[in-house]
Amino acid sequence: MIQINEHYTKLQSSYLFVEIARRVETFQQRNPDRQIIKLGIGDVTRALTPTVIAAFHAAIDEMARDESFRGYGPEQGYDFLREAIVAGDYRPRGVDVHADEVFVSDGAKCDTANIQELFDSAITVAVPDPVYPVYVDTNVMAGRTGAWQDGRYEGLVYLEGTPANGFVPPPPERAVDLIYLCFPNNPTGAVADVERLAQWVEYARSHKALILFDAAYVEFIRDPQIPHSIFEIPGADEVAIEFRSFSKTAGFTGTRCAYTVVPRACTAYRADGSGHSVRDLWSRRQTTKFNGVSYPVQRAAAAACSQEGRRELRGLSDYYLENARIIREAMQAIGYSCSGGLNAPYIWVDARGAGSWDLFELLLEKAGVVTTPGSGFGRCGEGFIRISAFNHRERVQAAVQRISSALS
Amino acid sequence: MIQINEHYTKLQSSYLFVEIARRVETFQQRNPDRQIIKLGIGDVTRALTPTVIAAFHAAIDEMARDESFRGYGPEQGYDFLREAIVAGDYRPRGVDVHADEVFVSDGAKCDTANIQELFDSAITVAVPDPVYPVYVDTNVMAGRTGAWQDGRYEGLVYLEGTPANGFVPPPPERAVDLIYLCFPNNPTGAVADVERLAQWVEYARSHKALILFDAAYVEFIRDPQIPHSIFEIPGADEVAIEFRSFSKTAGFTGTRCAYTVVPRACTAYRADGSGHSVRDLWSRRQTTKFNGVSYPVQRAAAAACSQEGRRELRGLSDYYLENARIIREAMQAIGYSCSGGLNAPYIWVDARGAGSWDLFELLLEKAGVVTTPGSGFGRCGEGFIRISAFNHRERVQAAVQRISSALS
Repeated sequence: MIQINEHYTKLQSSYLFVEIARRVETFQQRNPDRQIIKLGIGDVTRALTPTVIAAFHAAIDEMARDESFRGYGPEQGYDFLREAIVAGDYRPRGVDVHADEVFVSDGAKCDTANIQELFDSAITVAVPDPVYPVYVDTNVMAGRTGAWQDGRYEGLVYLEGTPANGFVPPPPERAVDLIYLCFPNNPTGAVADVERLAQWVEYARSHKALILFDAAYVEFIRDPQIPHSIFEIPGADEVAIEFRSFSKTAGFTGTRCAYTVVPRACTAYRADGSGHSVRDLWSRRQTTKFNGVSYPVQRAAAAACSQEGRRELRGLSDYYLENARIIREAMQAIGYSCSGGLNAPYIWVDARGAGSWDLFELLLEKAGVVTTPGSGFGRCGEGFIRISAFNHRERVQAAVQRISSALS
Repeated sequence: MIQINEHYTKLQSSYLFVEIARRVETFQQRNPDRQIIKLGIGDVTRALTPTVIAAFHAAIDEMARDESFRGYGPEQGYDFLREAIVAGDYRPRGVDVHADEVFVSDGAKCDTANIQELFDSAITVAVPDPVYPVYVDTNVMAGRTGAWQDGRYEGLVYLEGTPANGFVPPPPERAVDLIYLCFPNNPTGAVADVERLAQWVEYARSHKALILFDAAYVEFIRDPQIPHSIFEIPGADEVAIEFRSFSKTAGFTGTRCAYTVVPRACTAYRADGSGHSVRDLWSRRQTTKFNGVSYPVQRAAAAACSQEGRRELRGLSDYYLENARIIREAMQAIGYSCSGGLNAPYIWVDARGAGSWDLFELLLEKAGVVTTPGSGFGRCGEGFIRISAFNHRERVQAAVQRISSALS
């Protein structure tokens, strides 16, 4: 009898965005003439940049001729892209990453989801709260948790992000083995400074733990004091993996390219306590279960890493950050305290004692603006909403005008 | 302490292609002027077709403008592609597949690798021998096998493909839960007829087993009696999943698009014996761990499914099948019996009592032609070599001329 992986039955249905869609639809039915503005989901809206488009077309022309056609590429990505990543993203920050430590993939979601396969099913996992749900669900599927109870999975350690710690949780008292961190953070927009990241690296080193550092939003950092990479912290290369993506950086959510850096020094352990290269495990996983990213997409991504490409990308992130400023200042002007939105495309709004869904409903009913209730990201998200800066300027401006007139 | 998944340490290093590369390099060093012809690896060599290229370019132009830009798409693939697949690949064969049973992905390798996550770790798995190594290695990683011993993993059931059964193994006597089948077969080029597939479907139904049917090479079938899909067998929709790919069909090995069909009726079981939809499990897996295929790639794939696209694809597969005919007839003319190469791009050559590596060495030394030793695909591959028809015509012709003059 073909028996299912019973751990799947522990998964909660992805209630959040379904419920949002249901409420928006109900609202629209009651208000058929109302134009709804969506600042809920974190998806880019602006076109790929000219340098990227040109490289994309050129690569397709290569695929149109037998002489320049490319079949299977290396599962880890072409050297031209791995080198461009090192040169564009790490060398300028003085971070010593080598091209053979960079693994190109079709998404940071995939990589943060798949990485847990490399580790024992009995390890203890720590996740942020509020959290990007993929970190949690993939460990549930792998059997590293107990049942869902009171809004949390038994067996997971939740790292609580609160106003008191600026939504940047410190290492826990107890020992954990695998730690998910995300900075700039989704959903809170918080960033971690050198001191806090150094605490985490120190914790991981002393506990022989591993940090999974999700830096998908790094392009939005403007404060020169904020580290862009966990590898800016000395010793992190032995205890951390970093995930990055072209999705939010270069507008690649529909184009699909990302990468994961697994340093040669990064070590996990066998049951007998001997060390084992995490890079070798990931390489084996990727070569066995993955066939590399589409060649034209890799050329497009490499163009995004070029000098001209990076100038264009800066324009994209500046645009969304200006949206974030407009949203943040408007919400503050009507008395809501906000975090995020300075070095991140998300504004995390305190509902002033109301529930997440209450403020969500208020903004939908009064202003026709869709946001995301913070409670959907975990228990610590209750009492907050997330507003996304990913939209066209005129819609963002219209949204804040509506909110300001309706609520002030 | 972050402990590794110890099952990874059972994996044998991917000896085969490394060893081939080493021997080819040694040969080239000893014979620097000899031009080697590679008929080893199964990778396409001909350009994407005009219809595909045009759609690919057009989609990139869409991505260049805010008004037509696309961000995140559905994880399961866009409806335009799912509908095109149903209309192009199933409806003409009278097979009743619905678009919402089609899951678009970036590779059949990924899908055949990931699908086992849906099932319990204690199920019994049957794999062909000779075998595409991904079926085996991914189950080793998941802990469904014991150690490697005498060229096989303990705990796996090997379905032996031999000259006696035409390399199309019948169902085993004993009960197994998950069955990997691949037709047209890699590496033997064998195809399964209706009667044999019906036996498998009957076996799966009576044992509550699940068939994973890898049909990546379906485009090469010319015999009208050979089923193109496992779903041509009545009742298969309850007990089978089918994997297909644009890789060999449309020359997408470097472009990356594939799909998996999981019928609504397909059922696995909970520990208590109650049924559970496999489609729902796969949908949950894909939405949690995957972010969909690049939008321009999906447009290119949909173009391949169009009437004009399919005409061009037929031209591609005709070309490689003509290569296969040339190879097959040349090998037979010098006294080697062959299977495959008629409805498949691989020719499986009996080494006439010699070892796989012996015939490999003979062809390399005497003719400068690289093939793949059958023993690399499993114990039953010993005594055979695989010759791939994926190359340019003039190289294939040169290869067979060299082989004929050297060995006849």
